[in-house]
Formats: sequence, structure tokens, C-alpha cells
Amino acid sequence: MAGRFITFEGGEGCGKTTQIKLLAEYLQKKNVDVVLTKEPGGTPIGQELRKMLCTGDKDKFDAVAEALLYYADRRVHMQQKVLPALNKGEWVISDRFADSTMAYQYYGYNKRLSKEMLNNLYEMTVGNFYPDLTIILDIDPKVGLQRSIARNNQTQANETRHESRETEFHENLRRGFLEIAKTADRYVVLNADVSIEDLHKQIVAVIEKRLF
Amino acid sequence: MAGRFITFEGGEGCGKTTQIKLLAEYLQKKNVDVVLTKEPGGTPIGQELRKMLCTGDKDKFDAVAEALLYYADRRVHMQQKVLPALNKGEWVISDRFADSTMAYQYYGYNKRLSKEMLNNLYEMTVGNFYPDLTIILDIDPKVGLQRSIARNNQTQANETRHESRETEFHENLRRGFLEIAKTADRYVVLNADVSIEDLHKQIVAVIEKRLF
Repeated sequence: MAGRFITFEGGEGCGKTTQIKLLAEYLQKKNVDVVLTKEPGGTPIGQELRKMLCTGDKDKFDAVAEALLYYADRRVHMQQKVLPALNKGEWVISDRFADSTMAYQYYGYNKRLSKEMLNNLYEMTVGNFYPDLTIILDIDPKVGLQRSIARNNQTQANETRHESRETEFHENLRRGFLEIAKTADRYVVLNADVSIEDLHKQIVAVIEKRLF
Repeated sequence: MAGRFITFEGGEGCGKTTQIKLLAEYLQKKNVDVVLTKEPGGTPIGQELRKMLCTGDKDKFDAVAEALLYYADRRVHMQQKVLPALNKGEWVISDRFADSTMAYQYYGYNKRLSKEMLNNLYEMTVGNFYPDLTIILDIDPKVGLQRSIARNNQTQANETRHESRETEFHENLRRGFLEIAKTADRYVVLNADVSIEDLHKQIVAVIEKRLF
């Protein structure tokens, strides 16, 4: 079976991590070789970049510097992990990918940089290659941020740089993901404000329909 | 007096650091407010990126990832240090700038990425803005690398990632800087295989002629 590249996207606290884990278990039971990964931080160098990007003051650098760092992480991730796994026929599930950069750095910041710049960076870094399926978990930012803050308190990860942004940022972000979802067939938007089990069932239905 | 932006470029061990220090002393005696800086690493975030870029295995990431990281460093450097200083009328002297990225990532790697990609990154990051003067210190890589290795042994900096590349890389790099020097009037190439004092005198002569 050929490898597949599935990406999960959404705002803070939308439940991506939980759902990815459940999906991986489902696929493994079907004898699919699954690689779970994430952006930023899917490689050792990516982990250093993740720390730089996700901790500390929200104004430590601007949207342009952020976009360059996310794309550096993405380049290393593609070259060292995603493409080698796909070439071996594995299914790669990534917690965030390029759509997050468009949503956070373009829509979230209310267009402080150009969409063209981000498309240029994609072309330089990933080229003419796209995920087979992108699941966007949509949730009201108020609900999502409460979940996300509760989780950070539990894990002590201190990854609060994006959570600390104002409500408007998170509302722009949500609208951004919904805009992005309209641009290609590979996107599926699911309402994430339901039970874990219900959402998992919906995701499985999408996977069965689209990828098997 | 308006601020001026002077950049020094050249291969490993060409003597930039020593010459920048001597030039700063010369300018300070003329009552010029001088800011000495460098790329990568002119800011606290840049220092983290410098460590990532200049230490460790030479193949830890490819030319594209490197270019993105150098430009992320450059964006933060421009926004947080270079432009604010120039706006106050200070003279900024930087140990490396964008020409190093073109020389190392394009010419050094023998064109593994496109010149257009690097020009795109410059446009995104720096925009329509260039140094007032760029001094390229030209030296035979064999001589430069011996100097550079001796210096690293002294300072224990472990910044050996680029020095560890093969001779061909450094010869491409040298040719690259000489090619770049032909593209605009702001470049001056000086033979760096002379005494520290002689080179300093030549640099002072260039500065006096071009910037006063």
C-alpha cells in the first residue's frame, strides 16, 4: 500500500493530539504502518526551533521571522522524516503542517505579511507536494483556549507563547482555517466541540471514505 | 550625520573580526557612534540560531533549511538592532550580511538552490534596502582555513561546522564572493593576505573616500 500524508489542523485546544493518537490506534489495527509526527518539532533540530517558537514573549520576533523559522522546521521535517517514511509506504500523520503557518502568520496576525510570501516559502521548501488529507478541527477559541491552558498547567510545557495572544488573534485564526478549507478538496472541517468518541468516529468515517 | 551600514564579507579566516575592531576604533576617534554586530548572532535569538548553524555536523540540514535559518536571523537582526541604530544616526558595522548567504548557500554548495530563491528571501526579509558599503576580504582558502582553525583552537568556540567542509566548497565560496562583487558599486574587494596594519590602512582609505 502506498504511503499517505494526513495533516491535522486547528486552533489551540481543538483536540488534535488526542484524535491523532486514537486514529493511529485505529490504523494500526488495520495493519497500516503509522508514523506520528508534528510541526514544529518533528526532528531533533525541529525541537530546538519549537522551543524558540512556542515559548517566551509573544513579541520576541515578528510574523516574517516566525514564518521563516516555521518553514526551516518544515524543510528539515520533510527531508529527514516525512518523505523518507512516505517512500517506505508508511502513513504519516502530522499534528500541524503548512496550513497552520498560513492561519497563524497570515490570518492570525491580520495579514501583516502577504499570502504570496507564504506561498513562495511553501514552493521553496515543499515544492509541488501536498497532504493527501487535511482534517481541520474547528472550535470556538474561548472553549479551545480553556482546554489548552488546562493542558499546559498539567504538562508544564510552558508552550504558552501563542495562547497568550489576544482574543482577536484567535478569532482571526479560526476564520483563517475556515477560509483555507475552501481552497482545495483535501480539506475536511469537523466541529471539535463534541465528545472525544464522537469526533473520533467522524474522523474514522472520513478516513474510510477518502483513503481506503 | 546620517547612519551608515557597512558590511564585511569573506571566507573563513580572512581577518574580518580583527579589521572590524580596528575600523571601529578609527571611527570612534572621529566621533562616529559605532555599533558592532554580526550575522548570525547579532541578537539574543540570533545567538541561539548561530549555535544551531555554526556547530555540529555539516550535513545536519540542507542548503534550503540553512538559507531559511540565516534569513530568520537576518530579519530579527534588521528589526531589533540594525534599523533602530541607523535611525538614531549610528554607523552599523556587521561581520557578515546577506552576501554571505549567497556565497555560502548558493556558490559554496555549487548551486544546489536557486539564486532566485535567495533573492526572494532577501526581498521578503530586508526589502529594498542595501548596505552603503560592503568590504570583501579575499584570501586563498588554504591560508584562511589555517588561520580559522588556529583561532577556534584558541577560543574553544567549536564553530567548526563550515570549516569542516571540503576544499572545493571553500574555493566555490571564494569565487562566489568575487562574482558577487561585480554586481554593484557598493562592493570593494581587498587582498587579505597582507599584514593586519596594511589591510587596516587600505580599509581606512576606502571608508574615507566612500563615506566621508
